[in-house]
Parts: sequence; structure tokens; C-alpha cells
Amino acid sequence: MNFTERTVSSKEIFKGKIIEVKVDTVELPNGLGQQTRELVFHPGGISVLAITDEDKVILERQFRKPLEKMIYEVPAGKLEEGEYSNLENAVLRELEEETDYHASHLKKIHEFYVSPGISNEVNILFEARGLTKVQNAKPADIGELIEVIEMTFDEVQKLIAQGEIQDAKTLIALQYWELIRLRSK
Amino acid sequence: MNFTERTVSSKEIFKGKIIEVKVDTVELPNGLGQQTRELVFHPGGISVLAITDEDKVILERQFRKPLEKMIYEVPAGKLEEGEYSNLENAVLRELEEETDYHASHLKKIHEFYVSPGISNEVNILFEARGLTKVQNAKPADIGELIEVIEMTFDEVQKLIAQGEIQDAKTLIALQYWELIRLRSK
Repeated sequence: MNFTERTVSSKEIFKGKIIEVKVDTVELPNGLGQQTRELVFHPGGISVLAITDEDKVILERQFRKPLEKMIYEVPAGKLEEGEYSNLENAVLRELEEETDYHASHLKKIHEFYVSPGISNEVNILFEARGLTKVQNAKPADIGELIEVIEMTFDEVQKLIAQGEIQDAKTLIALQYWELIRLRSK
Repeated sequence: MNFTERTVSSKEIFKGKIIEVKVDTVELPNGLGQQTRELVFHPGGISVLAITDEDKVILERQFRKPLEKMIYEVPAGKLEEGEYSNLENAVLRELEEETDYHASHLKKIHEFYVSPGISNEVNILFEARGLTKVQNAKPADIGELIEVIEMTFDEVQKLIAQGEIQDAKTLIALQYWELIRLRSK
């Protein structure tokens, strides 16, 4: 089936530093008439399940203004202009800036839209291994205050059971970690 | 550590039918100065990993305007006003409207923010079992054109491996399905 919605008109609402908001009027297929679509455009980002040689995962705690609280997340960052063609570069940059680690091995795990009903925001999740601490690591962006925590598999499982892992990309990463452990048994 | 960002001022940019957009100026902790935050407010939603008595999962294909394409998703829907206190009701409504199924057993799996850097959108994922077809099921919303597909575990694993599951909540649901199968072995 093809349910393509043809754009009749598009109205620019907001163009910020990160997001752009438009309201489109669309023509539904099958003569069902017109509707409006509220659309958020976002540059997308990468995230990384980074596992140390001691089999610990690197998590962060960061204050998130939309939630007015701190939550646990895997290291992640927005893509810069044109960076979709060099994702590994973005992963290594964000990992170094936020955690001071370099990874010798990267592997793409999943690529997903976080809120496809309203946004084109995509996230590409990588697995990083072969971690070594970087001397004089690149500094994080100004205003990006991050607490870095290394956790064992059992500690993470407890946090998930307690409902303390509340971020979609982080749940995908940590469920993947459990899956590869279970599959290899 | 406490990295709370105090709101200095808040500017309403857009108030639509689904989302609201604001730009806040915040005071960073530790005297690091002020920054702006682009914020999208969303009513949140539920999603459901619905497994039939034949051990098939119910997926949908729907056109998503922000992506200009159709993608696979688990059944899902936005929360209505005040519905956060009765999530099971929302799950049963969306499942019936979109798939014509009623579920006798619901279990909450995870609750997660889909894009915590810019949005307060939350999704609460449920597992649904004991599915029976409803006679004269509630109709879907106008303009919500959905193709419903039932798939075996092996068919779903193939889609994931091919990168055809591109929605965060759906990945979380399908990873969970594999996890409960592996854990029970």
C-alpha cells in the first residue's frame, strides 16, 4: 500500500540553532481530504555503547532542560553539517569530548528515528571497544556539563529494573548489550 | 552532582494541535553564564508489543510525513488529556482502533524519553497478550492510514538485520521480545 501524503503548502514557524519547525498542509491519499502536519527538523545524532576492557559500560548523567531533571544516557552528540557521511568521526569526537576515551573498534548497531510522527531526528548507535584514555582530550562544548560513570552489567540491569534508564537510545544500547551476552552463551 | 539550569526567561514560539515550542534562556550552574534551550513539548504516548496466540507480533506500516516514507512501527498512539493516570485504557483504545484486537493481559515494559535533549516526549511501552479480534471495532482517526501486518519472530529478526526496523520504540519492543525468549531458555 502507498499512503504518501502530498505537500500542498509548507509554513516555516521557527528556525533555531538546533531545530526547525514547519507546519505543512498535506493532501491525504484516496481523496480523504487535507490535514496539517506539525514537523520538527533536527540534524540527527550518534550514540555509543562503549564497553571498557573491564567489561563496564560508560554512562553519563546530564541535566535535560525539557525534563527538568538529570537522566542516565549513553555518550551521544548531534551531527555537524555534512557529517552523515563520516559517522565514525562524530562517534570518536563525542566519545573523546565527553569521556576522554578513544576507541580502536567501532561497529554500527542500529539506525532509528526517535519520534517519526513529528520529527525527522535520526540516531545512529555504535558499539565501541578497545577503549584507551586520551591525554589532553578535546574539551566538551561550553555549557555541556556531564558526569561520567562506569558500570558493570549487573549494576545496569538493576537500574533498568528500577526504571532508572529512561532514555530511548540508552535502552536500545543496553538491551543490545544483554542480547549479545545471551546470544553468545 | 547537580547541574540544574535555572530558567531566566521563556518565550512561546508555537502552540499547535500536538506540539508546543518554546525557547528558554537558562542560567548554567557554577557561574558558567547563560545559554538558550530550544524546547518541544509533546503530550507523550503509549506503544505496544502485541503478541498473538500464534506467537506473532503485530506491526504496522504508516506514512510518516517528517521522513517522507513509510516505516514499520508497533501500534502506538498519543496520550489524551489526563490519560497518564490510565495508560491501560490508552493502550486498549489504540490497539483496537489500529488493529481490531483486544488484549486480556497488559504489562508495562519500559517508560522512556525519545529525545531528551530537546523534547519532553515520553513513551510508555506495554506488552499485550491474550489477543482476540473485536467485532465492530472502534474506527481509527480520520487520516490515520495504517497497514497491519502479523510477523513471526524469524521474519522480524530478518527485518532488523536488514536495517528495516527504523523506529526507536519498535526496536526497544522487538529487542525485548528477543530478550524474554532468550532469558527463558
